[in-house]
Amino acid sequence: MGSDEVKRVSLAVIRRLPKYHKCLGELLQKNVERISSQELGRILGFTASQVRQDLNNFGEFGQQGYGYNVEQLYNEIAKILGLNTEHKMVIVGAGKLGQALAGYRDFERHGFKILAMFDVDPHLVGSKVRDVPVYDMNELIYYVNENEVDIAVIAVPRERAQEVADILSKTLVKGIWNFAPVEVDAGPNIIVENVHLLDSLLTLSYRMNESKLMDRLARKNEKKSGLAKIPAE
Amino acid sequence: MGSDEVKRVSLAVIRRLPKYHKCLGELLQKNVERISSQELGRILGFTASQVRQDLNNFGEFGQQGYGYNVEQLYNEIAKILGLNTEHKMVIVGAGKLGQALAGYRDFERHGFKILAMFDVDPHLVGSKVRDVPVYDMNELIYYVNENEVDIAVIAVPRERAQEVADILSKTLVKGIWNFAPVEVDAGPNIIVENVHLLDSLLTLSYRMNESKLMDRLARKNEKKSGLAKIPAE
Repeated sequence: MGSDEVKRVSLAVIRRLPKYHKCLGELLQKNVERISSQELGRILGFTASQVRQDLNNFGEFGQQGYGYNVEQLYNEIAKILGLNTEHKMVIVGAGKLGQALAGYRDFERHGFKILAMFDVDPHLVGSKVRDVPVYDMNELIYYVNENEVDIAVIAVPRERAQEVADILSKTLVKGIWNFAPVEVDAGPNIIVENVHLLDSLLTLSYRMNESKLMDRLARKNEKKSGLAKIPAE
Repeated sequence: MGSDEVKRVSLAVIRRLPKYHKCLGELLQKNVERISSQELGRILGFTASQVRQDLNNFGEFGQQGYGYNVEQLYNEIAKILGLNTEHKMVIVGAGKLGQALAGYRDFERHGFKILAMFDVDPHLVGSKVRDVPVYDMNELIYYVNENEVDIAVIAVPRERAQEVADILSKTLVKGIWNFAPVEVDAGPNIIVENVHLLDSLLTLSYRMNESKLMDRLARKNEKKSGLAKIPAE
């Protein structure tokens, strides 16, 4: 790989960036000016070398013996996350979930503005949820293109999700945030981010189960004694 | 570290387990009997060595030159994820989000049964959402302990989340699935899994921004030529 090429950053690293961003924002509010990779790692629960490796993906931020400039790093990560531009969103599906998302103020605070919701249900069309109007699905394509919406949220039942993605593939939308518990495809030009609620629930269930599980594994390993392989750190 | 000890599995590995589980379930439905780490990695987008390393955390599943037995691995991962036991859940907060979650059939399909919802709003108490009754918040502690509920979902506004966690800390609940956009603490005996919706949205925004960002980094690196550090794989 030549030195003028840039490696694609792994999704695992990307998913950690919002945590860095949040943590640095909190440090900034406490007027912390600089921080070492070690200390930043301690707060976030990563090793210092993990922190350095993560951030090295995006250029050279830290300085040997000085650490990171909190404000500079915060602003750089915001830029990396695309937070320096306002995003315009619509929610497709004005049912319970769509309405819950429309009521969530945290998104707007981070520059994600919800402009409108869309639904097929004539009882919902014409109503409003916290200032967000609900329009007819037939108006989706026109509205999205006319208003330069860049993100569409899919909040319809599983059975309708691909259909909605097909419609969105005909618009100028750049990203789909999919809450339906099924993978959707919207062609090569639209990025799809799936919200896997079940994965999160399974992680909880695993963690609740972990101590029992580890006891069981330890007993198994004891029996096999020397044969047991403990993966290295 | 002695060979009879078992290393705690990193959260990153744990978060990948549901993906293994889902993929193996699909293979099982297609009557695939065995699969190599390479092939499994290809489907999931990991390297073969990543797959082997992940699964080695939980014992020795694969066989050199044979690969993994799909059904056995599927069942083992189900056990690891705690899917071999039924979980009883309640949802605290019967607003839009709570109602949306109560209507989600995917959880029950995986053994997570939603028994009841709780709210302070007298207009909601006494109603039902898809067979799930809404009870008064005052009954929460009694109900959870009486019915051996092991998971409580927090679906109340940010300002009320810690208050609910405090109440839950007095119950026999083992896990909290927190949808409020704020960290909550429920003492040392209860596992809390936070659903970070904003993190997912930021990941989408990053991915939409990535090609532009990578171009910018590549140009920066070109200027610095030999000085640019590309982290190794």
